[in-house]
This record gives sequence, structure tokens and C-alpha cells, in this order.
Amino acid sequence: MNFKQLLKHPSSRPLIDQARFGIEREGQRVNLAGQLARTDHPNAFGDRAFHPYIQTDFSETQIELITPVTDSIHELFQYMAAIYDVASRSIPNNEMIWPLSMPPALPEKDEEIMIAKLSNFEDVLYRRYLAKEYGKRKQMVSGIHFNFEFGDEFLRSLFAQQTEFKDFSLFKTELYLKTARNFLRYRWLITYFYGASPLSEANYFVDKPAPKEPVRSIRNSSYGYTNHPNVKVSYASMNQYLTDIEQMVEEGKLSEEKELYTPIRFRGGKRVADLAKTGVRYIELRNIDLNPYAYLGIDQEQVRFLQLFLTYMLWVEEAEEADQWVAEGSKRNEQVSLEHPLMQTEFAEEGRFLLNDMKKMVVELEQVEALPLLERMLKKLDNPSETLAAKIYQEAQKNTQHDFATELGKTYYQKTHERPYQLAGFNHMELSTQIFLFDAIQQGIEVKVMDETDQFLRLQHQHHVEYVKNANMTSKDSYIVPLIMENKTVTKKILKEAGFRVPNGSEFTTMAEAIKAYPRFAEQAFVIKPKSTNYGLGITIFKEGADLADYKAGLEIAFREDHAVLVEEFMPGTEYRFFVIDGIVQAILLRKPANVVGDGQRTVAELVEEKNLDPLRGTNHRAPLELIQLGELEQLMLKEQGLTISSIPAKDQVVYLRENSNISTGGDSIDMTDEFSEGYKQIAASAVEALGAKISGIDLIIPDKNLDPETEATAYGIIEANFNPAMHMHVYPFAGKGRRLTMDVLRLLYPELHIKNS
Amino acid sequence: MNFKQLLKHPSSRPLIDQARFGIEREGQRVNLAGQLARTDHPNAFGDRAFHPYIQTDFSETQIELITPVTDSIHELFQYMAAIYDVASRSIPNNEMIWPLSMPPALPEKDEEIMIAKLSNFEDVLYRRYLAKEYGKRKQMVSGIHFNFEFGDEFLRSLFAQQTEFKDFSLFKTELYLKTARNFLRYRWLITYFYGASPLSEANYFVDKPAPKEPVRSIRNSSYGYTNHPNVKVSYASMNQYLTDIEQMVEEGKLSEEKELYTPIRFRGGKRVADLAKTGVRYIELRNIDLNPYAYLGIDQEQVRFLQLFLTYMLWVEEAEEADQWVAEGSKRNEQVSLEHPLMQTEFAEEGRFLLNDMKKMVVELEQVEALPLLERMLKKLDNPSETLAAKIYQEAQKNTQHDFATELGKTYYQKTHERPYQLAGFNHMELSTQIFLFDAIQQGIEVKVMDETDQFLRLQHQHHVEYVKNANMTSKDSYIVPLIMENKTVTKKILKEAGFRVPNGSEFTTMAEAIKAYPRFAEQAFVIKPKSTNYGLGITIFKEGADLADYKAGLEIAFREDHAVLVEEFMPGTEYRFFVIDGIVQAILLRKPANVVGDGQRTVAELVEEKNLDPLRGTNHRAPLELIQLGELEQLMLKEQGLTISSIPAKDQVVYLRENSNISTGGDSIDMTDEFSEGYKQIAASAVEALGAKISGIDLIIPDKNLDPETEATAYGIIEANFNPAMHMHVYPFAGKGRRLTMDVLRLLYPELHIKNS
Repeated sequence: MNFKQLLKHPSSRPLIDQARFGIEREGQRVNLAGQLARTDHPNAFGDRAFHPYIQTDFSETQIELITPVTDSIHELFQYMAAIYDVASRSIPNNEMIWPLSMPPALPEKDEEIMIAKLSNFEDVLYRRYLAKEYGKRKQMVSGIHFNFEFGDEFLRSLFAQQTEFKDFSLFKTELYLKTARNFLRYRWLITYFYGASPLSEANYFVDKPAPKEPVRSIRNSSYGYTNHPNVKVSYASMNQYLTDIEQMVEEGKLSEEKELYTPIRFRGGKRVADLAKTGVRYIELRNIDLNPYAYLGIDQEQVRFLQLFLTYMLWVEEAEEADQWVAEGSKRNEQVSLEHPLMQTEFAEEGRFLLNDMKKMVVELEQVEALPLLERMLKKLDNPSETLAAKIYQEAQKNTQHDFATELGKTYYQKTHERPYQLAGFNHMELSTQIFLFDAIQQGIEVKVMDETDQFLRLQHQHHVEYVKNANMTSKDSYIVPLIMENKTVTKKILKEAGFRVPNGSEFTTMAEAIKAYPRFAEQAFVIKPKSTNYGLGITIFKEGADLADYKAGLEIAFREDHAVLVEEFMPGTEYRFFVIDGIVQAILLRKPANVVGDGQRTVAELVEEKNLDPLRGTNHRAPLELIQLGELEQLMLKEQGLTISSIPAKDQVVYLRENSNISTGGDSIDMTDEFSEGYKQIAASAVEALGAKISGIDLIIPDKNLDPETEATAYGIIEANFNPAMHMHVYPFAGKGRRLTMDVLRLLYPELHIKNS
Repeated sequence: MNFKQLLKHPSSRPLIDQARFGIEREGQRVNLAGQLARTDHPNAFGDRAFHPYIQTDFSETQIELITPVTDSIHELFQYMAAIYDVASRSIPNNEMIWPLSMPPALPEKDEEIMIAKLSNFEDVLYRRYLAKEYGKRKQMVSGIHFNFEFGDEFLRSLFAQQTEFKDFSLFKTELYLKTARNFLRYRWLITYFYGASPLSEANYFVDKPAPKEPVRSIRNSSYGYTNHPNVKVSYASMNQYLTDIEQMVEEGKLSEEKELYTPIRFRGGKRVADLAKTGVRYIELRNIDLNPYAYLGIDQEQVRFLQLFLTYMLWVEEAEEADQWVAEGSKRNEQVSLEHPLMQTEFAEEGRFLLNDMKKMVVELEQVEALPLLERMLKKLDNPSETLAAKIYQEAQKNTQHDFATELGKTYYQKTHERPYQLAGFNHMELSTQIFLFDAIQQGIEVKVMDETDQFLRLQHQHHVEYVKNANMTSKDSYIVPLIMENKTVTKKILKEAGFRVPNGSEFTTMAEAIKAYPRFAEQAFVIKPKSTNYGLGITIFKEGADLADYKAGLEIAFREDHAVLVEEFMPGTEYRFFVIDGIVQAILLRKPANVVGDGQRTVAELVEEKNLDPLRGTNHRAPLELIQLGELEQLMLKEQGLTISSIPAKDQVVYLRENSNISTGGDSIDMTDEFSEGYKQIAASAVEALGAKISGIDLIIPDKNLDPETEATAYGIIEANFNPAMHMHVYPFAGKGRRLTMDVLRLLYPELHIKNS
């Protein structure tokens, strides 16, 4: 099969970039001093039995982060970053993820290395077997597993241009076999570039000899975690490959098929033997060390290079004699692994040939954007000191590898903790969605971003699929609910009918009608507002009634905004947002206009500057609170109070900088959930129930929260109900306790997970 | 209690217009020749056991239309008109509603007058008793029952200004007692104006003497349906009133309390005796004859006059001696009822006093807009020939009362049948909502229009409430469904994942990305479109691929409409709308561009003119089809075919006047439901299920509807799913069978009603 010809075919070429990716990344949990953690895998992650993203590998301290399969490198790193963020912020606050493949200093006693406490006893037994067979210490090494699949449309296009294979699945197997053989032959180049385990830490080599000198990759050498030398398989054909494995298991050289640790694995069905039926669906590279300079352990350029390299493995000729070809590759890899990191590699010339040939390939395949990357790799071939192993070794020379790794780990810890309300990878999405994604990933619910700009998510746990938009628009609410809430008149009618206190008033569609109703309102406090705007436009409040001329003027203003206008009694009091989920008030929030509190020493401007240092404040809704501005409106507001930005307010004097209490203009969000008695919560919950909603933010005007709404007729009034209320301001309020509403939504969607309170 | 003073109080005056209204209107079903129907009450109305709007009164042929209680006269007539429309179009096609209070010619034999076949046997027994006690023929008279309640806010305001009563309920009872006593004293004026039963038809007076001369109101006289003379109650106090009734029942003068037929009734609880506890909540006037000149049997001016008259009954002084006062009223009413309709009434002077005093009242109460109405009534007092009874009598003189009534009935029949897709009273709402309201009223589901301009309805059957917007946005669909369908990319992903054929393609948010993908599309048929417009804007179709320049131009056009653009494979074929409700394809529609079919004789213009005569065609979406225009676009289209509006197309030649198939530009809707095999229906139903929707219109492109979608990969492609699809075009298609989708939605909402197929 001439794959090179197939690749060059004009109908395949446009599809060559299509591929699917997946990464598993292991890492030891350590404390902030770089010492191996002694804690269990955190409960925060829910049940390890099904967690798709965050698992434990061999040991209880060895966290494993698993991305879903993605269609692009960009998406791969979105998920990788998000999962890393979740892991980093969900493990105990004094722990971090060790950035090296080689473990930190290990306990002296074997029994202090904890085998992962998995619920499936077979999994535990297998790990015990491995500990016995290979020693626990070797199992503590971490790395990257890189899953790669050529795009389906692309493969079908290749398949369509050949006649040798009638069966697509057999064709794919042949294609991946060639890729694998060449990969095994040339993988030394990957070890050269990305080998990153030059040195070990204390108690790694205890009963076995260690390399005498620093190397490129302990992990990829015979000092690493490899099968015993008598384990050998042929890659000549799938048949041969499977027969060999079967035989070794029969002969007891392997306890079971999955014990075969090769730098590349074929993946198809659930078990290796299934490959005979399913064919190869994708391949898994297992020879990538953790790159400590990439906080995720690998970066996008590496993945792009691996993609090109694997494409090239399909492109480049191979030798007839498969076993010998592969054996030669293993020999070279062992040699390169054990070379001194600063030394020119023995096989530099072959490396140069490969990279130059790859350049030819990318030109022929119209992937010229990859040329600069290949040029950079060529330079690294000539400059061993730029390889990962060399860089780590040089850092370790300055001080110790331990200190270097600990410092890096702390940097990454900082990076993931400085804006806890954001989720890396998805921080262009709305904050509520970012927090919601964080919680879903943490709880092991599979998430897929269906549409990033539309905040559209797909969640799945086992067979239970839920779609979610804006973090709280779900299948649990019925279609009619948001339609009811969008219509203020309908909302009021329903609430009134159900016995709740809403402002009395009427809707008018003509001036004449509205003017006729003037006598009803003339002598009371009332509001005129357009029926369907939400942003305060066109609203006039008459706190002490109005004469007919003012009444008409107010109507005119409102009619400019909408064809229908509401005239309603004005209810005095403070507005609180009650957030109801599944019948329970989960949060109550008070919003205060932008303000500073004086200390008798600093100016308004200085006080604002200090208040703005709060990491919760940012711009453009990328933070739960907005920076307080000192623009025209704020200065006008100060002027009305006889102040300027240079005035020095007295100690404890509250100076307001805005009239409106919107968070978006620098207002404060203050959690009041525990300040309210059950009575008010019951009112809010029942009102939301009357509207038929599962999730709603309902706004109550309350003159005095110590009144009893059961007995006092005017203890509250309901202003409006919101069908897509912001959640982030409750989760990260300016003051008071944060309320994890996103987790409550998950509880509503997935009651079967029995998500615990953290 | 000086009610006049209370009414004049400035805080009551603005509220005086507030009142609640309800009407019950009886009418005999007759055939189009004016002969009493011999059919049963139609099954179309579902179960009479609970029907709130359409019932039978005494006889099986006597339909009774009942409005809900409304807060305005306008709304009262909306419901009245709607219910009348439903009744008129749901009874057999060759029947109509007799417009007179006096029944049409009755069968000679008593047994041919069918007592209403009610399911509650007690109700049947009571009717049998009445037949025996009063004779069946008297029971065949029809009329209006008018329910009236002063507004609650208004009554509370009156209550607040007095000190005599501590209890609001007792106050109201006193108020309605005064109103009733004065009404009974002065009701002769109502009989004078609105008496409308001057003559009887054949077989009405069979065993009892008839009036010798035409009269004002047989129905309101002693010739009408009244209790035996020994039945008398006092209106002096509620206590006396209830005691009297109780005593008469005990003495056997009445079989039960409801047998008391008085021109005014007090209403409170379920039974008369409950009034002692509940007080009077409203009053029911029973002395209004059917006005044959109003197609609903009564018109808005009459109701307005009754409202003023009742207010005046509260305003005007009454005599001390209640029983005598009422007895005088009864005497006068009997006298006026039996006056010749063309004769000046005996009590004209009292009438003039009353009307002039009412004029004073409306001026004092700032209801001056009522003055012209009172002036008109004054004129009628001087011109007996303008009263209803006189007008009917004069018509009957010309020919016969029977012919006159039959002609009027047919006129009203025509009025309710000419636009069967509209619902009187609500014909400003969307057509789908009008049809849906029709069906709900027909099936006896209580409807309330919550917001007319927003197409927002509340339905209720017993305790089961449903809110519905736009006739198919309901609680049965979850909130996430419309959000999925609004997002074309998400919709496609979900359908594709579920195994349905959707156009291959990608979403792009930048020109650069999109241009990079050019090679993938260059050589195939494809479409470029903005992600989220629905109206064809910004779409470019390349049926044979495109060069890069055209590709870029297409992208630019699409990006003008949206920040995201889809490039998709173009699927050739015909587009069909599959309408799925609750898992079943209930309708399939083909839309054809505006067209005419030649006859070899007439010009295009003449053919258009003829086609536009179809009553299904109208303008501005007030009809299921739009008029075909002959504007610039149509003439251009003709020109491209080498035609003008004066060309004479050959026989059977189809001439298209538009390129697009929208119904809104004169297109034809053609029902194809029975033309498709189960396979396609299954695809559509399953696709809608995959999207989680209960109600959806899903558009399939089908190259040949005789293919088998199970086996042929390209037998269909799904273009999009709509979450609020128009229904009226399926109910009233241009060609093919209408599909009553509105009824299917009702079945989905109210399965407990077991609504039958008609």
C-alpha cells in the first residue's frame, strides 16, 4: 500500500488536518514544599468509579487528568486547562500537582506508598500485583498518554482512492500498523526533544542500580517502567501482534494483556483481543514525559509536532522486515534515552534527514504553516541544551531539581488560584457558565461545549443527557415559564391570582385609556413604566402622587419605549433578589450602589483605588464585580453630596458613587441568605412555584425584613421574576457567604449523583 | 343608608365604572328553513357534564351559551361573540340558532319536544317535573340572563365611607337588596325598551289562552313562563326573603328553591339558602328578551344601559313599604308587557322622569359620556315604533314573523361561516391562536386571554391549569428545546449525533477560518448562510461549487447578517414541513410559490383575480393564505418566463409568480400527509424526539418521496426544526385535507378529556 500516494491525492489533502485528540496526564500530589501528599484522593471529586476526567493512577497520590476526545488541538487544550484548573483548586488548599515525570522524594518504607483506594477490588489487586512484580517506586513515575486518531472523513477519502482493501476497518488497521512500526523505529527523536526525566529524587532507586550520569529520559529507558526483557511482540501484522500477546499471557509472562507496556498502543474495543473484530480505531503514545515548562505537562506546539510526526510516519517508507525495523528503533531509543542531556545525539544525522523530509511532506501536503515549527525543531537538534532534559538538568545544577520543581509547581498553583471564579480554557464564556462547568467537571459529569458563544452545554452521566444554556436554562423548566416571566402583566396576574402581593395597577395601550384612569392614581405613590423593558428606561416614579400634567408627561416617556404601559402603585422598601432552585431559596442578595467607606485619612479616589484591588473586581463581566469608575456620573454624584474625588470622608462614612445598585456599574453584592427568617423564604419559594418555575430569581421589595410576611399585609411586594438570573454574583459576593448555586443546579439535573455539600 | 351620598363621594366616583359582567343566552336550534331541529345536542361539544360555555337548557334543542365573568363590557362581548361563533359552526351544517325569544313553530305532539338528554338524572327529573307543572311549550322560550356585580374596589370604597355596617358582606347585601327592590319597581321600562316577544308561532299556545293582540313581551307577561300566582316572596330583608322561599318549598308551592322564577335573582353561594352566610355577591336579571337585531341576542349598548339603570336603582329613592313597592312594579310590568307594541306606554311620564333623573346622575357621577345614550332612550320613549317589540311586529306585518326570523337567522349563519378560520371577538390575535381558542371553547376548556397582543392564554379544566402562548408554546416542552432549535449548530450536532442526515459543514466566526476551509467545499454543491437568521437573508447557494472569489463574496454577504456563518453541503430536493405533536406526524405540508394554472382563455391577471376570490386568501396574515400580488417582483418573474400579466397561459400550464414558496407572498399550502409512507414519518418523529420536543415543525429535503429512507442514504436531509411553527396553514390548506393541529395540542395538554376525532 503506497500511503504516500494516497496522502498526496487532491481530494485527501484538504482533509489532512482533521484528527481527533485525547490526553491523559498523570501527576503526583505534593504539598507546597514539594513533599509527596499523605492525604487521600479528595472527596470533592465525587465517585472515582465513574469519574471521566479526574482519576487516580497507581497510587492514591497520583492524580490522573483525562480529557475527552476532541476534534482540534485548540479544544484539547481547552479541556486540559479546565480539568487541570478543577483538579488544582479541588485538592486540599496546601497541595499542588508535581510538575515532573519523576516523582518527588519517596517515603523510605514501601508501605507508605499508598496504592490507589479504588472501589473495584480487581483494580486494587492488579495494582498490588504490579507493586510486587515491578516495585512500587517505578509505578510512581508520571507521564502523558497521547491518543491520536486520523479524521474519519480523511481516512474515508484515502480508502476511496485505493482498491487493495475492500474493508474500511482492515484498511485502517493496516494504516495504523505502518504508522506504529515507523513510530517505533523513529521515536528516539521524540525522546530526544521531549525526554524530560534526567534525574531522580530521593528513594527512587533503592534496590536497583541508577544511571551513573544524568540522562535524557529515565522514564523512556530501561531504568523506567518497562516489561521484563522476555516480553516481545511483533508488529508485522495485527494477527501476529494479537497471537504474540495471547501467547505471553498463556505462558505467564504477562498477568493479563493490559500489562504489556509499549510506547505505542493500538486502541479499538474494550480489550486488546477485541482489535481482531473492531480493527484499530486510534493509537495511544505513551512515551511522552511531563514537560515541566508547560503548566499542563504538554503544550500545543508539542501536540502539533506529534500530529505532523505521526502523519510523517504514515508517509515515510518503512523496511520490509518489520520486527527487525522495530528492534532497531528500540535500540536507538534506549541509546538516546541514556545519552547525557547536553550531548549531541548519536543519531543527529538521521534526525536531520527526518525533519527535512517532513518539511518536504508539509510542502507537498499544503501544510506550509508548519514549516517554522520544523525549523525550530531542526535547531534543537543542533542545540541539545534547548531540549527539555537539558534545561531541567541545567536548572538542577543551579540549585536542586527538587527546588526547581517546587518553585514551578507553586507558580502553576498561583496561576490556577488567582481568579477562582474563572475556568481556564473557557474564560471567554459567561462567568456563571464557567463556574457551572467547573462544578460539572469536578463531579465527574461529562461536559461538552456545544456552542461557546451561545453558552450551550451538553452534560452526560451514563445515559442521562442534559442540555444547559447560560448555566441555568435547562430541561427542568417548562417552555412556558420563561414566556410567563417575560411578560410582566401575565406574571403579575398569575401571582395575584395565587394570592401574592404585587403592585396594583393596570396596563394601557393608548394615552386616552391611561388618562381616563388618572383619578385612580392621582393621590398615591405610583410608577409609570413601559411593559417590556428591563433596563430602567422610560420609568417615572411619583412618590407622592402627581398632577395631571406630570402624569401625562410620565405616560409619554413610557409610551416612547413600548406600545403598552403599566401604571402601578409604588412600593417603598429595599429590593432583594431571592434565588430559588427546586423549591428552595438557596441565596438572598442585596445589591448596593458603588460606594466607599471612609477611614478619615484617605481621599475618595484613594479609597476607590484600594477597593478596586479586590481580585473579585474586573471589567466587562469577566469578574463577579466590576471596577468602580470615577467618571462623569460618579463625580456628579459626589458633587450632589458636596464632595469631590479629593475629599477625605470621615471614618465609617459611606460615600455612594452611583444612584443605581447595578453590579455592572461597580455596585456591591451582599449575601443576606442567613439574615432572613423562614417566612420570607417561603413567600419567595411559593411565588416561584406559582409561576411553575424550577429556577428563578425573584425580586421582593421589603420595607423591613423583621416584619412577619404571614401577618403584615405590606411586609413585601413582588416586583418581578427572572428566568435567567445571574448566578456568579451569589457564588462570589462582595460580602457575606458565597452560595454555590451552580452546584444546586447540578443537583437538580442529576439527583442520582447525590452530590454532597462541600 | 343613603347610597346616593356614598356614590357621590369623590373617592368612589373614579371607580364607579368598575363592574363584572356575565351573560347566559338561550336559543333554539332550527334548520335553515326555521324549523325546530330534531337532532341531539352535538357530540362536537364533548361532555355536557362540565361544559362551562355551551349547554342545553330545558330542551335538547335549546342551546345555552354562557360567558365567563368579565371585568368589562368589551371583554364580555369578546367571549360572547367567540362562544356564539363556536356554537354556530359546531352544530350541524344545516342548522342555525333561532334569533327570537319565542320559539319557532313547535311540534304538535308534546312528546316530540325533547327534554335535554343530560347525564345527571336529577337534572332530567327536574325538567320532567317542570314539563308537567308548567307545560313543555312554555319552557321552549329563550332569553338573556344578565349577571351583574359592582366592582370590588368600588364597593369597598362605598363601604369605607359609611359607619352603619361593620360587616362588608352585610353592607353588600343591603346594597343589592335596594337595587333589586327598585329594579322590580321600575323594570317595566326595560320591558318597554327591550321587550321583544310580541307574537307567538304555531303550537305555542295550545291548551292555554293566548293574548288577543300583539304585545310588548309575551315572555315577561303572565303568558310567559312564571310561577303560579300563589308564589310570593318579600324583598324587605334577606332574612324575610329566605324565610319566604323556605316556607314555600315546605308548603310544596315550589318543588325546590330554584323553581322560584323571578325577574331578578340574588347570587351568592351554590344554593339560595347559602345567601344567609355568603351574602349577595351579584345579581342576575332574567327579564331580557332576545334582541333579534343583535346577532348575539343583546348588544353592548343594551348592557351599558342596564349597568347605568342598575346604578340608578341604587341611587334613586325607594318607598318605605318594600312589598307594596315591589308589587306596584310587578303590576306595571304586567301592564307594559301586554301593551300593544306600537302604543304609547301608560307610564311614559314616569319613564321620562326616570331617564331625566338618570341624566342628572351621570352628570353628578362624571359619566357624561352616557348622556347621548340616555337621550336616545328618551326618544324611544316617545316613539314606541322604535322599540324592539314594535320593530319585530312591523316586520311580521310585512310577511310573517317566521320568515323574518328565518332570514335574520340565515344572515347570522352566514356571518359566522364566511371566515371559518377566524374567531369573532378575538380576530386581532394570530390565526393559530384563534383556531386554538375555538377548539378549546368547543371542548369546554375554560379559556382566559391573559394578554391579547402577546397571544397568551390560560386554560383550565377542573384543577388542571395550562398556560399557552402562540397556540403551541406550552408546558409540555422543556425550556431547553426552543433554545436548542434557535441554535442551528447545536440542532445539527444533536441530530447528527443521533444518526440523522443533516448537511455536512462547519461554523466559522472569522473570514480567515472560513477561507482556510475553502478546499473542502470548492467542488461540491454548497450553501453559505448566517448562523441565526431565518428569513433567507444573507444566504448564497452554489449548486455547482464555486471559485475562491465567489466563495469569499458569499461569506461576506453572510457575515453582514451574523457574527457566525455556516458553510454546508447543499441538499437537492423538495422541502416538506413535517408537523410533529407528541411523537406523531400529524401533518405534512408542501409549500409552492405563488402561481396560477392556465385555462387557455384567461390572462395571467384574470387568473390571479379569480384565484384571489378564495375566501382562504386575505391580507396581513388575517387569512390562512395571502392574496397573490402583481407587483414588480411578480412582473419580473413573468418577464423571465417571457410573459406579461396580459399573456394567456395554455391550458394546465403552471405559471409561477414568485421564486420563493412563502405563504406570505401568495404561495400555496398543499397538505401531503397521506402521500407519505410510514418511513419518512418515522424519521421526522424520531428526529423531533432526539431534540426532546413535544411540538415541532421539522423541515426535510426529500429528492423523491418514493425512496425508502431506511435504506437510501440520501433519501432525506434535515434542514431545520422550528419550535413555534405556524399551524393555521395546516388546518386550512390551499389544497388537500385540513389537519386540526390545534386539537392535537389540546389532546396533548388535556389527555384526561379524551377528545375524540371529529
